Parts: sequence; structure tokens; C-alpha cells
Amino acid sequence: MNTFATPAVPALRVALLGCGNVGSQVARILLEDAQSLQARVGARLELTGIAVRTLDAPRDVDLPRELFTLDAQALVEDADIVIELMGGFEPARTLILRAIGHGATVVTGNKALLAQDGPALYEKADAAGVELCYEAAVAGAIPILRPIRDSLAGDRITRVLGIVNGTTNYILDQMDSTGAQFADALAAAQDLGYAEADPTADIEGHDAASKAAILASLSFHTRFALENVHCEGITSITAQDIAAARADGYVIKLLAIAELLQDQAGDDGVSVRVHPTLIPRTHPLAAVHGAFNAVFVEAENAGELMFYGQGAGGTPTASAVLGDVVSAARRLVLGGPGRTETTTGHVPALGIDTVSTSYCIGLKVKDQPGVLARIAQIFSNNGVSIETMSQQINQTDDGSATADLRIVTHRAVEASLDATVKQVADLDVIHSVTSVLRVEGV
Amino acid sequence: MNTFATPAVPALRVALLGCGNVGSQVARILLEDAQSLQARVGARLELTGIAVRTLDAPRDVDLPRELFTLDAQALVEDADIVIELMGGFEPARTLILRAIGHGATVVTGNKALLAQDGPALYEKADAAGVELCYEAAVAGAIPILRPIRDSLAGDRITRVLGIVNGTTNYILDQMDSTGAQFADALAAAQDLGYAEADPTADIEGHDAASKAAILASLSFHTRFALENVHCEGITSITAQDIAAARADGYVIKLLAIAELLQDQAGDDGVSVRVHPTLIPRTHPLAAVHGAFNAVFVEAENAGELMFYGQGAGGTPTASAVLGDVVSAARRLVLGGPGRTETTTGHVPALGIDTVSTSYCIGLKVKDQPGVLARIAQIFSNNGVSIETMSQQINQTDDGSATADLRIVTHRAVEASLDATVKQVADLDVIHSVTSVLRVEGV
Repeated sequence: MNTFATPAVPALRVALLGCGNVGSQVARILLEDAQSLQARVGARLELTGIAVRTLDAPRDVDLPRELFTLDAQALVEDADIVIELMGGFEPARTLILRAIGHGATVVTGNKALLAQDGPALYEKADAAGVELCYEAAVAGAIPILRPIRDSLAGDRITRVLGIVNGTTNYILDQMDSTGAQFADALAAAQDLGYAEADPTADIEGHDAASKAAILASLSFHTRFALENVHCEGITSITAQDIAAARADGYVIKLLAIAELLQDQAGDDGVSVRVHPTLIPRTHPLAAVHGAFNAVFVEAENAGELMFYGQGAGGTPTASAVLGDVVSAARRLVLGGPGRTETTTGHVPALGIDTVSTSYCIGLKVKDQPGVLARIAQIFSNNGVSIETMSQQINQTDDGSATADLRIVTHRAVEASLDATVKQVADLDVIHSVTSVLRVEGV
Repeated sequence: MNTFATPAVPALRVALLGCGNVGSQVARILLEDAQSLQARVGARLELTGIAVRTLDAPRDVDLPRELFTLDAQALVEDADIVIELMGGFEPARTLILRAIGHGATVVTGNKALLAQDGPALYEKADAAGVELCYEAAVAGAIPILRPIRDSLAGDRITRVLGIVNGTTNYILDQMDSTGAQFADALAAAQDLGYAEADPTADIEGHDAASKAAILASLSFHTRFALENVHCEGITSITAQDIAAARADGYVIKLLAIAELLQDQAGDDGVSVRVHPTLIPRTHPLAAVHGAFNAVFVEAENAGELMFYGQGAGGTPTASAVLGDVVSAARRLVLGGPGRTETTTGHVPALGIDTVSTSYCIGLKVKDQPGVLARIAQIFSNNGVSIETMSQQINQTDDGSATADLRIVTHRAVEASLDATVKQVADLDVIHSVTSVLRVEGV
């Protein structure tokens, strides 16, 4: 029984513009997770259509044919929420302005448009009293704009250092870990789909520069556009640069930096820039590998913060888009301040007995033939699978020998593990169980 | 001229309950940053009073004597926003309920109260249509609740792993880095003020358990209380456990875990637990040292996210409190959906010339006496101070020698550095400038 789609539940009409890498995932989630999204919003999110340039282009996701339309304008006119994922300047800008004009909430991931025309778009949205959300425009899945705008609203940000382009981070990370030259690392990134056939926007820093302008605008409550960003790419970085940096304890990252500074007269100003940068290998940003992104924020009161996650990819970026959609939809439904939490789930709390995890068990045992086999048999009897077992022999003063045994298990249920440990402890060849610890993150 | 405190600007009346470590910093920021907070909110935040137990107790911050009052109830009755930082159950709970009862927004950092009575408090706030904000209750300055609640609102969280207690992370980190036993590391933490004289709540995991209940409730849209949390502390962890873990490539952390699992019948359930845990040294959480906190979130679409920062301390936690106050105040002022950005700052963008940073310069030079001195003189003439200079001699095929020189500078202005590099490049003893890179994060 579908308990959700009753006529009593209000609906919000959602128009999707664009069905590429990110758009197709957004459509999939809107359709697949319709029930849980409805429970969180308090209204149905009704996907009214997907505006595309070609009706029968191949898509990443299998979507109902009847949703596609070539008439983006009609779709926008009829929507409560417009999700713009076409990219580029036109017709994206015109469609966003039209949506704002008739009072629709706009969610976009269009960093290039925001970096160029953001100030004008924000003003129109403010004047019309509608929300313009763009979490997906910077650092993909990482929630960074909302923390800067809201969570740090009572603080003073002094500097933002961001790894905001996955392509260049992948290339530099490859150069650092393999010693490859730039051209070879770029070719590898292209083979893996991390870099496009024309990689200019990434490797010359233009993509990072757009994000730097957006980050700077939010961090310093001042509108900065692309023309305010000093931009250098990574094309001149050599394997020798990387090796020399490594020898000195540094790693080279392409950073988007927005920094509050004093000019020569002592007055405040903001530097917004993108360039390859040495950072100490002990810095939290140095541990950001592959195509991952991270934004490091320094604030007067909060101190150092870092936000880490996937900076690109259809599904992660779709998560950021949907976060904006649901948050905005909640406010449309409720009006006024949003609910402080939602309790739409009804899952029970499980006892620790039902948890399944890996365990590391330390035992002190007599050094006798057959001990390992007897212990292993008890694990097996309880359905607990052993991943590794290692032992170290100790000679005692009286000439007899004991062994320190360490066993790491595969994932097992806590209750089975408990039973195993109790039975092992009762063996006459066991001196003591020295530790039982859980293992996570593997 | 004070352009802010004109009679035309509306005021929001803010009551502060408690003036300890965090409360005194919140009061300081409300007073010191009044103008910038007003600009961001669109209304004055008027601190009407600070309820304390003793009027003349010593405070961390010098605050106007007339703000202090013993009558918390009268303060609450008269407030638009109530900030509760007394801690403990009573009178905090009664005062919060009273604030909700007359329609005030409540901001609290009281994790123990929320873990015990959160569900009842959220319901009262929902019913009254007021906001109950508590970003400061989990992981201090780290914006974690808003990202989980809003940014991931369209995603499905599957697991949360948090280092949410700085005291125990400090102790375990010390044991890991120095080989100390638990008792010695605890004593060191107490000496440094990271652990209290009675450290029970921290080392037995109770503080982390409160935070686990709050994280689980938000992540799984279901209300979990302290009684749902399985809790083990770190008192039985030995130096031997740590050393053995290290030998296997693991580090031991006290983790707060909230995890979506299936029970034996295959139905969904949530495990909420706190226990010492081995994690691989390559995991992002393994790099969280000292008293820092971090929360690692796994979501179906977003993938892996991590939020890192200071988990305690008066000033960082005050930043989280003020973030809640400003965000809520904006909504009170504007009604309906909040503004998508504020542009209340008026700082100009600075050119790259005025940026001051450190530089790493690579030079290929002739290996002749006096070369280093001539180069150093040019740096000095331009006011660029050298931090380190290292060289490597290369024999060339014709028997002459060149040297690869690497110079790292102290912070210098870009324009001075440019002039320096140009003059150095012109020296007859220079073959080439091989690289000029900026250094950050030092």
C-alpha cells in the first residue's frame, strides 16, 4: 500500500533543466526516493519534466521518456522549484531569471555563471524574495557553502584554502606518488575520465577560479567576480618541482585561496587567487588524495576547520543538489523558520549484540602444539571467520614458553564474537585474554 | 560616526544563561562584534543580561557588571532569543521550556540535556513553531549538525564515525605518539587542562555517548536517547594495545558510531555506540591529532565526507553558538526563506601584488665563489628575508660545474619577490630560474 501519494498531500512542481552527468542522477533520486523525500519535505516533489537539447540522446540513467521536453521555458513557467544543471551562460541565465521572475526557488550548480553573473542573480533573487541555492557549485558533495554562510555567520573568516578541482588534484597526486611528469599524469587522468579531452579549464585553473570567487564572496560578505581572481594553472609544474618539494617535506597542491589582508596603507582587502602551492606534508590538506576535494577554513573564533569529500561526479554532486532542493522545499511548505529536525524515520535502535564489525583479539597462550588449531576451531564453530593470526613467542623465567597471539577477524556479529571469546578463555591452554577491540574503516 | 545604532534599526533581545568558559566568550563576541553582527542580521542583537549563580564570581572575560543577574526567569520572559549555556539538567530544562512557551528562539550547547530530553524538547519547539538550535552541542566549532540536517537532506546517510571527545583523543594520541601508559597520558592531559580533575564523563565515554545520540537522531530521522547508546570508555586501553595496533598499521580512536544495519530478520535498524576502535592509519580519521574532533559521514549518494576542527574550548564553541544565533536572528528579521547571501562587507579585492606569502625559488647557477652572496644581497636589497637556502652541485659534461639552488623565503610581498627574481635572473652567474612557487600552511 502506498501511504504517501494520497490527494491530501500537497505537491511542489520541480522542473529539471539539463540531463547530463549530474542531472540524470538528480532525476533518478527524485523518482527512486520519492517517498522518503516526501516524508522529509512534507510535500510531494513532483518532477514535471526534464528540459534537454535532444530528446533521444543516450543518458546515464534509464528515465521515463515522457519526462523529456525541448521546451525549457514552458517547464520553468510552471514550476515551484527550478533545478538548473545545463551549465554555460545561455540559455541558463535567461531561464534562471525567468524562474526568479515568477517566484520559483532556483537550485543551480553552475559555477561559471555564478562567478561571472552571481552578483546580478543574487540581487534579483533577493528583490523577488526567492531562494537561489548553489551548494553543488563548489566542491561537489561537500557541504561548504551552508556552513560558511550559516554556521560561521557569527564568526569572522580570515582565510580559506581550497582544493576545489579534482582533476588537478588527481594529476598532482599522481606526480607526487609516482614521480610522473605532468604530461604523463594528465594522459592517465584522461584515460580514467578524471580529465576531459580538452582539459584547459581544469589545468589552467579557470574552474578553480570560479569556485574561488564564490567562496570569497560568501566568506567575506562582499561580491567578488572572476575578474577579481588571480589565476595560475599547473601546466608548468615538473616532476623535479614535486621531487624537490617532497625532499623538503612539502607537497604541491593547486589551491583556491581567499584571504583577508591589509594593503600597504593598512586597510583591509581580500586577495582571491588560484595557484600551485607548496604546503607542509603534515597539513590536513596534504592528506587529500586523488580526485577528492577539501576546503580548509580559518576563522577568528572557530580556529581551523576542514571539510572533505568528493568534489565531482554525477551522484555525489546530485546529493548536494538534492540537499538544496529538500531544504528549500521544507521552507516553502512550512513557511517561517524551518523545523529544527525531522523525525520521519521509524527505525528501531539495535543493541550492540547485533552489530557486525571486525575484531582484533589479543591472547596470552601456552606455547604448545595444537593450541592454534583448538582456538581456530572455536572461532569456526561460532561462525567467526579469521582474517589474520600472528604470534610472538616469549621465554619465561622457569624455562616454559608463552605466546602472544593476535587475531583479526572478518566482520562478525558481536554476540558470536562474545561467545567465541568466552569459550576460548575457558581453554586450559589460555593464560589470559589481553584485549578485544573493534576495527572500523577497513 | 556610528552608522548602525540608529533608532530605525530594530533590535532583538538576547538573554544569556550561564557565563562559564563558553558563555563568557559568547558575551564578549556579542559586545565586541555588535556592529558586524548587526549588519549580518539586519537588526541589533541586544544582550539584555547574563544569568549567573553568583554575581561576583571570577570570569574569563571582563564584562559590564550591570549585565549580570541572578533572576534567569525574568531574563527569559523578556527575550526574543535565549542562549542556554548553563549545562546540566535543571534549571536549564525548565528555562528552555519557558522560553519555548513564550515563543523565543532557543540556542543551546547542552548535549547532556539534549541526549536525555531532546525528543520532548524538539516536540515542544515544533508545536510552538520556534527554533531550537544546538550546533555547539556536538563537536564544538565544527559545523556538523546543519550539514547533516540540511545539506544531506536529500541523501541517505548510512554511517557516521565521529571523534567527538577531545580529551580522549588527546590521551590516545599521546599514548600513540609517546608510548605512554593510559594513567600517564591522562595525568598529562589534566596538567594541560584538556582533562578535568574528575575525568569520568570523558574517559568512560559518557560525553561521547550524548553526542552519538544527537548525531544518530539527526542522521536517521529517528529520535534516539542516551539509553539507546552502547558505551565503552578507554580506561582499559594499554600501551601494549596501542603498540600492537601500530605494528599492524592501525591507530586506536574512541569513536561515536551511528550505523544503519539489518537485524537478523533483515529489517533496518540503527546501532548507536561508543567504544575504542582500531582504524587503519591511512583512514582520514587517523590523521586527527591532539584535542581536535572530526566527524566522518558515509552517505549513499555523497559518498565519504569528513568535517574537522576544534571540538571544545570557549572561543571555538562560542563561534558555533553565534552561528546559530545569527542564522536564527536572520530568519526572525526576514521571515520566510532567509537571504541566500549577505553582502554587508565593503572590502575591496586586492591584486596579487599585495599578497604576502612565503616563496620557494629554484635556480640553476654557475658553481663559482661568491654566487650565493650576490644572490642573497639582491634578496636583502628588496626586503625579502631568506628562511632556508640549499644547493646541490652537478658536474656537467665539459667539466664545469653548475649548482641547483633552492631558496625558501619568509613571508614577503609578491611585488618585492617579483623584483627580486627579475634582478637575480639578470645576474651573469645564473643559468635559469627553474621555478617560483608559493608556500602556504606553515
